[in-house]
Amino acid sequence: MREKTLLILSGGMDSSTLLYHLLDMGHKVEALSFDYLQRHRRELDSAKRICELTNVPHEILQIPALTGSALTFDKDVPHGHYEEESMKDTVVPNRNMVMLAHAASTAIARGHDNVAYGCHHGDHAIYPDCRAEFVAAMSQAFALCDWKEIKLLTPFLTWDKGAIARRGAELEVPFELTWTCYEGGEEPCGKCGACVERAEAMATINAA
Amino acid sequence: MREKTLLILSGGMDSSTLLYHLLDMGHKVEALSFDYLQRHRRELDSAKRICELTNVPHEILQIPALTGSALTFDKDVPHGHYEEESMKDTVVPNRNMVMLAHAASTAIARGHDNVAYGCHHGDHAIYPDCRAEFVAAMSQAFALCDWKEIKLLTPFLTWDKGAIARRGAELEVPFELTWTCYEGGEEPCGKCGACVERAEAMATINAA
Repeated sequence: MREKTLLILSGGMDSSTLLYHLLDMGHKVEALSFDYLQRHRRELDSAKRICELTNVPHEILQIPALTGSALTFDKDVPHGHYEEESMKDTVVPNRNMVMLAHAASTAIARGHDNVAYGCHHGDHAIYPDCRAEFVAAMSQAFALCDWKEIKLLTPFLTWDKGAIARRGAELEVPFELTWTCYEGGEEPCGKCGACVERAEAMATINAA
Repeated sequence: MREKTLLILSGGMDSSTLLYHLLDMGHKVEALSFDYLQRHRRELDSAKRICELTNVPHEILQIPALTGSALTFDKDVPHGHYEEESMKDTVVPNRNMVMLAHAASTAIARGHDNVAYGCHHGDHAIYPDCRAEFVAAMSQAFALCDWKEIKLLTPFLTWDKGAIARRGAELEVPFELTWTCYEGGEEPCGKCGACVERAEAMATINAA
């Protein structure tokens, strides 16, 4: 029996690589994206195109606007490196729990085995809801929330973004279709933390 | 400093009593209700009226329809007593985690201290997401999900519904405005598990 896995897909390089990674592992994958009126909503088009390419069923859930972050027009997008204090402005309060809760609800209703999301080690410094302790608490909640236990898969939890880029290259992920930039303009800004981190990760593909 | 608490308010007797209970404890309360296309959406009118009466700010969040339950038109509402196996049809997959996640997101963005919800001992047999183990896992996730820790308050966790009814009577909760019935018709059906349990709880007020 193939594992049935519902993937939270932003359309960025991490979750897109995770999609290819799960397919490579033999999972039957469906994908769920979230429209929370994020500044970089254009990532949803990337998610859609990646799913079309891979023949993965895809749904975009419109959820109430999440507030209180640079990614939701409440603050300016800070420029620079992820390690900087200013990057905390890009934390959307409790965003990952909201997405995980909806995903688990959908997964239970559809009889799936797992929910997967692409948190990774590079996010730990700035995003509390990408850390191992948070994942452990949510895994426990997933195990207890319903009559059917849902597993939470986070295979990139201990990887850095360079490792994801290299795995993606190996799997021939069409990175050119993915969207990373927080500004959400026509072209990536190249200056926000997400752009800077992506460029650093991509640089390790050829260096490896 | 008064504690600021965001209450998940369904408009039923448990969460309405919890609203009065929190006000009695001196909390500054705001209330959040959820429209998930539940069969008994009329409970939202009850929530609105209770908040108007108590001058508590109230918001109704429209979230994507939750599916897979008798409460969301996917099955018939079973009649009888909560202890019966058929009542599991009234479980909305992962509903409480979805509501708790949105509430925590809102609470963090607004600078509140706590999120509260009215789970109680009488729900434990049928609803996994009302049990102490689930509450413990979610409390842990709340503590870890953001830079600011949010506390999860469930003061009725070990109470039965009779105890809530008696506390509500003491606080003069206008029970006649609250809505319990799962069918969501013009008048309570008197036959669903929720109606049966409410009647049993109310009967203990005068017996006490």
